Amino acid sequence: MPLSARNRLAGTVRSIDADGPLAEVVVETEGGETVAAVITRDSVDRLGIDEGDGVNAVVKATDVMIEAE
Amino acid sequence: MPLSARNRLAGTVRSIDADGPLAEVVVETEGGETVAAVITRDSVDRLGIDEGDGVNAVVKATDVMIEAE
Amino acid sequence: MPLSARNRLAGTVRSIDADGPLAEVVVETEGGETVAAVITRDSVDRLGIDEGDGVNAVVKATDVMIEAE
Amino acid sequence: MPLSARNRLAGTVRSIDADGPLAEVVVETEGGETVAAVITRDSVDRLGIDEGDGVNAVVKATDVMIEAE
Amino acid sequence: MPLSARNRLAGTVRSIDADGPLAEVVVETEGGETVAAVITRDSVDRLGIDEGDGVNAVVKATDVMIEAE
Amino acid sequence: MPLSARNRLAGTVRSIDADGPLAEVVVETEGGETVAAVITRDSVDRLGIDEGDGVNAVVKATDVMIEAE
Repeated sequence: MPLSARNRLAGTVRSIDADGPLAEVVVETEGGETVAAVITRDSVDRLGIDEGDGVNAVVKATDVMIEAE
Repeated sequence: MPLSARNRLAGTVRSIDADGPLAEVVVETEGGETVAAVITRDSVDRLGIDEGDGVNAVVKATDVMIEAE
Repeated sequence: MPLSARNRLAGTVRSIDADGPLAEVVVETEGGETVAAVITRDSVDRLGIDEGDGVNAVVKATDVMIEAE
Repeated sequence: MPLSARNRLAGTVRSIDADGPLAEVVVETEGGETVAAVITRDSVDRLGIDEGDGVNAVVKATDVMIEAE
Repeated sequence: MPLSARNRLAGTVRSIDADGPLAEVVVETEGGETVAAVITRDSVDRLGIDEGDGVNAVVKATDVMIEAE
Repeated sequence: MPLSARNRLAGTVRSIDADGPLAEVVVETEGGETVAAVITRDSVDRLGIDEGDGVNAVVKATDVMIEAE
């Protein structure tokens, strides 16, 4: 089921820090970049993700900013 | 001036589609991934960005989702 | 591929208003509620959605506010 | 005082999980759907909401994604 | 009906630029700061706002970033 | 390095409440308004911010709502 969110970066879970209702998941993308996501702990449990798992980091285009050099 | 947003992907502007008050900017990251951003046209003008320019795509960690495989 | 976004409301596309790089998609959920989404026109084309199609409106929990009565 | 956010789903608070500065509030809408919100614990206290209370789940249209079937 | 969004800045509408399904509304706050909002054109019509009107700019705390000096 | 985010309010950190992976930072702007931000604890550490420090609260225009009076 395709999603409208334009940005989808394939990678591997490097760490999961869950404390309280939220968790921080750090993903290393195939391109070698690090992406941090804050999702609910329930989502971590529901997805069943763990360190080393392959995942996609997904971002809506309206949530991306541009920084000029 | 460092920013709290955790995610900053370096890349090059591949296209800018401005129509109405908003614009879509497509960036190819150094890792070879494509990231689309929707920002205001005023921001495009203020940043003075154009195709081929080096930029960073910046995303707050709370705006990143995880998709399990 | 399950997604971390907690909220997924099944419904039917009632209208699509595309003008410039963005489009507004209005969905009537199975529960009879109306949900409006602003996504890129490219996503409308890529998903191939049209009026009458079944879709899910998806929202990250950190993007939901609560209004008390 | 009307708000620009397009989406407002009436419902009842089913659970509140507060731990740290944030809380997860789960609402069952009148249409029978479940919506999870992550808000600050200060907002839970300020609104004075509790399980069983009538509330609205409010979402900005730019924060809604569409998933095709 | 109080809203969970923590940030509410009172001000005056200075300009509205509507083109396509979205509009950019610029507000000058009572503290003398300028805040730009992108909302749907339907919301502009529904709220009936115009230049010179008193409004609040409302932002969820999870959408605020911090930039150190 | 200028950022596309349109809104940047200069102020002073009044409090930092860090517990779990997230922290709430309250800023008093120069205009005398209070703005709350939820950022990751890692960002608090990386920025090295503390009560009394000068910072900017930064918000993307698509994350601002308008409330009519």
